[in-house]
Amino acid sequence: MIDHKKNLKFVKGNNMIQWMKDMWGYPRSLTGHGTRKTLEYLKDINPELNIHSFKSGLKVFDWEIPDEWNIYDAYIEHESGQKFADFSKNNLHILGYSTPCNMEVTLSKLLPHIYTQPDQPDVIPYVTSYYKDRWGFCMSENDKQELPDGKYRVIIDATKGAGSLELADLIINGQSNKEIFFSTYVCHPSMANNELSGPVLASALIQYIKTEYPNPQHTYRFVFAPETIGSIIYLSEHIQLLKENVICGFNLSCVGDERAYSYIESRMGNTLADSALHAAMIDLDNVKKYSFLDRGSDERQYCAPGVDLPFCGFCRTKYEEFPEYHTSADNFDVVTSEGLEGSFNVMKSIIDAFEVRLFPKVSAFCEPQLGKYDLYPTLSKKKSSESLRMNVIAYSDGKHSIFEIANKVNKSLDLVTSEISLLINNKII
Amino acid sequence: MIDHKKNLKFVKGNNMIQWMKDMWGYPRSLTGHGTRKTLEYLKDINPELNIHSFKSGLKVFDWEIPDEWNIYDAYIEHESGQKFADFSKNNLHILGYSTPCNMEVTLSKLLPHIYTQPDQPDVIPYVTSYYKDRWGFCMSENDKQELPDGKYRVIIDATKGAGSLELADLIINGQSNKEIFFSTYVCHPSMANNELSGPVLASALIQYIKTEYPNPQHTYRFVFAPETIGSIIYLSEHIQLLKENVICGFNLSCVGDERAYSYIESRMGNTLADSALHAAMIDLDNVKKYSFLDRGSDERQYCAPGVDLPFCGFCRTKYEEFPEYHTSADNFDVVTSEGLEGSFNVMKSIIDAFEVRLFPKVSAFCEPQLGKYDLYPTLSKKKSSESLRMNVIAYSDGKHSIFEIANKVNKSLDLVTSEISLLINNKII
Amino acid sequence: MIDHKKNLKFVKGNNMIQWMKDMWGYPRSLTGHGTRKTLEYLKDINPELNIHSFKSGLKVFDWEIPDEWNIYDAYIEHESGQKFADFSKNNLHILGYSTPCNMEVTLSKLLPHIYTQPDQPDVIPYVTSYYKDRWGFCMSENDKQELPDGKYRVIIDATKGAGSLELADLIINGQSNKEIFFSTYVCHPSMANNELSGPVLASALIQYIKTEYPNPQHTYRFVFAPETIGSIIYLSEHIQLLKENVICGFNLSCVGDERAYSYIESRMGNTLADSALHAAMIDLDNVKKYSFLDRGSDERQYCAPGVDLPFCGFCRTKYEEFPEYHTSADNFDVVTSEGLEGSFNVMKSIIDAFEVRLFPKVSAFCEPQLGKYDLYPTLSKKKSSESLRMNVIAYSDGKHSIFEIANKVNKSLDLVTSEISLLINNKII
Repeated sequence: MIDHKKNLKFVKGNNMIQWMKDMWGYPRSLTGHGTRKTLEYLKDINPELNIHSFKSGLKVFDWEIPDEWNIYDAYIEHESGQKFADFSKNNLHILGYSTPCNMEVTLSKLLPHIYTQPDQPDVIPYVTSYYKDRWGFCMSENDKQELPDGKYRVIIDATKGAGSLELADLIINGQSNKEIFFSTYVCHPSMANNELSGPVLASALIQYIKTEYPNPQHTYRFVFAPETIGSIIYLSEHIQLLKENVICGFNLSCVGDERAYSYIESRMGNTLADSALHAAMIDLDNVKKYSFLDRGSDERQYCAPGVDLPFCGFCRTKYEEFPEYHTSADNFDVVTSEGLEGSFNVMKSIIDAFEVRLFPKVSAFCEPQLGKYDLYPTLSKKKSSESLRMNVIAYSDGKHSIFEIANKVNKSLDLVTSEISLLINNKII
Repeated sequence: MIDHKKNLKFVKGNNMIQWMKDMWGYPRSLTGHGTRKTLEYLKDINPELNIHSFKSGLKVFDWEIPDEWNIYDAYIEHESGQKFADFSKNNLHILGYSTPCNMEVTLSKLLPHIYTQPDQPDVIPYVTSYYKDRWGFCMSENDKQELPDGKYRVIIDATKGAGSLELADLIINGQSNKEIFFSTYVCHPSMANNELSGPVLASALIQYIKTEYPNPQHTYRFVFAPETIGSIIYLSEHIQLLKENVICGFNLSCVGDERAYSYIESRMGNTLADSALHAAMIDLDNVKKYSFLDRGSDERQYCAPGVDLPFCGFCRTKYEEFPEYHTSADNFDVVTSEGLEGSFNVMKSIIDAFEVRLFPKVSAFCEPQLGKYDLYPTLSKKKSSESLRMNVIAYSDGKHSIFEIANKVNKSLDLVTSEISLLINNKII
Repeated sequence: MIDHKKNLKFVKGNNMIQWMKDMWGYPRSLTGHGTRKTLEYLKDINPELNIHSFKSGLKVFDWEIPDEWNIYDAYIEHESGQKFADFSKNNLHILGYSTPCNMEVTLSKLLPHIYTQPDQPDVIPYVTSYYKDRWGFCMSENDKQELPDGKYRVIIDATKGAGSLELADLIINGQSNKEIFFSTYVCHPSMANNELSGPVLASALIQYIKTEYPNPQHTYRFVFAPETIGSIIYLSEHIQLLKENVICGFNLSCVGDERAYSYIESRMGNTLADSALHAAMIDLDNVKKYSFLDRGSDERQYCAPGVDLPFCGFCRTKYEEFPEYHTSADNFDVVTSEGLEGSFNVMKSIIDAFEVRLFPKVSAFCEPQLGKYDLYPTLSKKKSSESLRMNVIAYSDGKHSIFEIANKVNKSLDLVTSEISLLINNKII
């Protein structure tokens, strides 16, 4: 029997933190060299990753793949020579998908192109204009207030035009073609919780499965794609297969802080993913459950009407719910190795449960005689009954999933998985 | 696109109030000239109304149509010449369905025939004896206490015998034969909330539909009938058709005061009418929900076992829940134009929703790209998402009715209807 | 019409108390002469009882019938001649299924064989070792503390070996082969609530049905068996028949005290037994509802996966929830005639409901005209409606069981049964 308690080396958050630091500076967006380098880095640590390329202009459902945008440098230079909003210092300074620029403007002409977050005057906000041509810079409100009068040169060294969009997937084939699907996104520049926490958690889970379950019961699919347009492309390519095979999916987003454990229900709130995520959080503190009405990441696509995959969102603190969200303050003060490990353990407990037995079923009619397996005390005294074990057996009817059993007996998924593993080893299940 | 916000002239409660005042004095009962005149007045303002006549004695399910009763005058005259309980001053003074009378009695013989409401000593109660021969008068407890000793002449100038019972219906044919059914009753004498508020609201809704939706999506049926026996007759005549076609029905009763918005669930609480009424009340104050156990009007028949139409009761303050109920105090202090308008708006919002799209369904897989329809901001900043619009789309799967969608997103039905109308105009739905 | 209010002589708890006292001293266990005498006594008062015998060693599902154990005498005698833990004074003193013994030991060798309940130092605990060979005595902690130093002779005059296990059933055939199944157990020595209360309640119910319903609508099955192994044997013999015919079952355990009314839900919580038990307790004080997770008696077997009979547990105060449980304090201070009568009335109200009409259905469309049956006031005044009667009719649709109707209208099952009986007599149902 597998020792589900042992801490594997890749469980340690420090590895994940290091990966994040390595990828920190790549200027990710929907397209371009920043995202491409990110995917190449992920392929380095997950060699079986497949990177797929799609031409700009391609129609996917109601959408069209946007032009490729590459950003190399950007800043505003005052006539005094002072530089502001310098992309080389923080890649959030450039408005995402800005058109190239090299021109002189006065302060009053410049100001409408400066984006700030006035209620958080210290931080650089993250702003994009993917589908309408604009140019602009993001600055802290404080810095904006100190822009001197006079003339400025605006430099945006970028290209925008026909090209491609990249995304990647990795499939671990199992004995069954029934799939567990993890999706995360790779389109945000230097921010930690939203976004690098997701790809590194997914990478750690890939390594966990490959090490711990070399011949897994289920197939596992991991997707790394630009948010929204990436998942829409992926669905347009694979929707029939996914609808046939995916039995449980999670969107991994903002999985690195220590403040909460959050889940976002699927559209109808009744899938295997919902019960799995609920079960995996039974014993955790500060669990927050959000309705599908509060969604905001790729569960929007995976659960859309007609798509209807069994998908939930998983976060520590949910996007939009933490003050650093979509600002330069979303950094390594927010994301910690403990935070990432917490997320890892939640997903690991779900994987372990899938691998032990999804629909456990006792083999005998009536209760098994546990005493003969040394699984029950031979002396009958007050309060000597093994209630968790008996309750797990009572709902191991082949109809309740291991997650529903954990929810029914209201004990941690890890405990229930251990019990079921023990009962399987004794041929009771 | 229809401007659902504009206030049509017939929406104004004043018209409804005037109609009520016109019909106020007709001595309505299950049968007789008071009810007949009421139906003729309603036909004047709704020319397509059809009045149907049924012979007394006819068997309908477990019931039999009672004799026709006509009341012309009634009073008690003391030997001093003083008149009491004078029908010509208030038609509540006569016990409904009293047998004719012309005789002399002493006070002690008279008193058992006097009905009062001792806990409301100022008001004349409304009392009937439809199915057992009796004679009697209704008075305020105060007036009864002041009846002088001596002899009285009792005059009840009435007829009771073979005749007929009348009821009326009006059908507005739509593109679909699926029907929305409004029922209200016409058998109570001079009382305002319980009863005239119902027929005038139904009349205003007829005029609204005919003006606003000259070629409606759905068929609309309106029934004006004496309570209980009238709806039973109507069901006995049309039950197969109604069971096939009616998808939503409301009993309109006590719809003219300003104190509350009430709904009475259908027998199983799970019909389209239930979700429609719930949705239409999302943003209202002082909403009261009653279980079917608290029913009391014609929903009793429409929801009876075997009949099982999808029917709810709709009231402002529910019958039996306001002190003026079934007394002479149920007058124009209780019913106001604002009260009637409130009810009109609830029913109007349901009709509008039916006419826009009952089961909206998005046409594309995944989320539509709202930006290209100018329905989404092109600049992506914190908290810029159009959450109501996205949530309406998320549940527009062809399976949730527009009412269930409003209940799911918990926004007012009018708002949701407007969103769906906008999405239809953009061919997204 | 049956007068469901009259108190039959066997309803009186005193009879049940007397039966308990008669059987008090028989040294019951899973097997042996104590249980055999108990079953023979029960056959004396229920002559149609059938006693069935099963050989030890027989395999039943995952179990094997244990050896027969007979206990005749047992005590510890100090070298001074003083006797302790004397079986002839209280049969709880012997560890259940102790191996025979006749030997001399020192106090220190003796002590590991003495079982006490240290947190209740005055009482003798009830302890067994059915499936592992041990010898031992049960004593109060206080008595144990006073055992003098020195040598002791240990006498356990018992036999343990090939033999048989007995259980009994009694079937009252009804017009339908659909069965109501009552199960109770006969394997505990001198304790009152856990256990003799169950067999005497079952006996009283047998006598009630035979007297009151000589030709019952339903078939009634009563089983008296050693707990766990007995019900497993019974199931192994009859499982197909039981799965086909049993529509409702109750495990009767701890039904004699006055402190509470308890029910333990079936495994899925959605059977006819669940709604019956809920309905029968509507008007009772101190009702406690336990989930299946808190089960502990033979509902464990009857509701096991694959068996899945519609079974609930019924108790006054549930096993494990009262301090006297499984000790010598579980005696006639705990169980009273009032306590037993309370249980009798709950089960009687369920039987009466089954016998009146399980799925009542009104015969006419729309509401019946109750006035013509003298079941409704002929004078219509404020608040004169017969709401219970109308509500019972409203849910008598042939789909709701009488128990679901009582739960829906939230009135006592006896009241609802009386109403339905009245409506049947008037041919309305």
